Amino acid sequence: MKVTLGISNRHVHLTEEIYKNLFGDAPLEVVKYLGQPGQFASNRFVTIKNGDRKIEKVRIVGPFRNYNQVEISRTDSYNLKLNPPVRSSGDIEGSSPITLMGELNEISLDKGCIIANRHIHITKEEVIERNLAGIEKVQIKIDGEKAGIIDNVYLKIADNSKYELHLDTDDANAFNLKTGDELEIIAKK
Amino acid sequence: MKVTLGISNRHVHLTEEIYKNLFGDAPLEVVKYLGQPGQFASNRFVTIKNGDRKIEKVRIVGPFRNYNQVEISRTDSYNLKLNPPVRSSGDIEGSSPITLMGELNEISLDKGCIIANRHIHITKEEVIERNLAGIEKVQIKIDGEKAGIIDNVYLKIADNSKYELHLDTDDANAFNLKTGDELEIIAKK
Repeated sequence: MKVTLGISNRHVHLTEEIYKNLFGDAPLEVVKYLGQPGQFASNRFVTIKNGDRKIEKVRIVGPFRNYNQVEISRTDSYNLKLNPPVRSSGDIEGSSPITLMGELNEISLDKGCIIANRHIHITKEEVIERNLAGIEKVQIKIDGEKAGIIDNVYLKIADNSKYELHLDTDDANAFNLKTGDELEIIAKK
Repeated sequence: MKVTLGISNRHVHLTEEIYKNLFGDAPLEVVKYLGQPGQFASNRFVTIKNGDRKIEKVRIVGPFRNYNQVEISRTDSYNLKLNPPVRSSGDIEGSSPITLMGELNEISLDKGCIIANRHIHITKEEVIERNLAGIEKVQIKIDGEKAGIIDNVYLKIADNSKYELHLDTDDANAFNLKTGDELEIIAKK
């Protein structure tokens, strides 16, 4: 069983309220639609900061959400001197505080920075079609010189999903993977 | 069977000739001895460049060698817009050209940039003691939230080695590993 890879670079999701605080009335516009329906790379970037450490040009992914979340890699976390937990998107209780700089303001969030877990977007119909019912997570088998197995890949079941594997840049670069690669799923009941 | 991890950050090995060209008579001094006998983190750094892309403060690892080699991660290679091969240290024929900047000069090498393969330093006596005779490469099993298997880990057999696993920062960060971690080897005959 195969799945297509989409590599997630560091990015942020914002509420409309926080966005307006950072950018005022400047519109959040679509630059490019992403794999998951309705999600888009926007025309706006923030700088993310922790003390004197910062990473510039971190893209806002739209549309607005009802929470603020900064998704970075472990490599980024060392550069920022943060130690965020590995989490599912939206599961931000107790995650790392981080500061956002927009064009107008700087806002310190008391939580919201995570390392996204490895996951596959899938509908409940596809779960049944692919004989994955009752399985919480799978493995991905990688071939080539940088071969191996990526474990703890969660099935993220939702209506209106596009079937797609999401890995961060650390996972992708360790295994020399590119967006669009077709990878093998190992599912153990 | 366990092995202790040493994470290799990006670094360079130089001939004495190239070093003198880059730094003149300024001595290459030991800051800290590394895991492998005689190898040391030195007091000198170069900037590595490809066109207008560069990474500053890349440490020279001593002592001098009879070849020039720049070891980077896949993440670094994207930042530099290079596509180096995954290789054993010293195997630099056909590897990527790269430019070095020292305090006095800039030198363009026509080869030498690699991504180091995953490897374990081991003596031939330890190979026999650990029942690894005839095995070219092993796997490393990782537990935890970022679990999995790292494949194609080569046994690098040499006298005067210290038994140690070397991974680059991409591999380490993908699996949330730290220098000093004790990891499980899987050896298949």
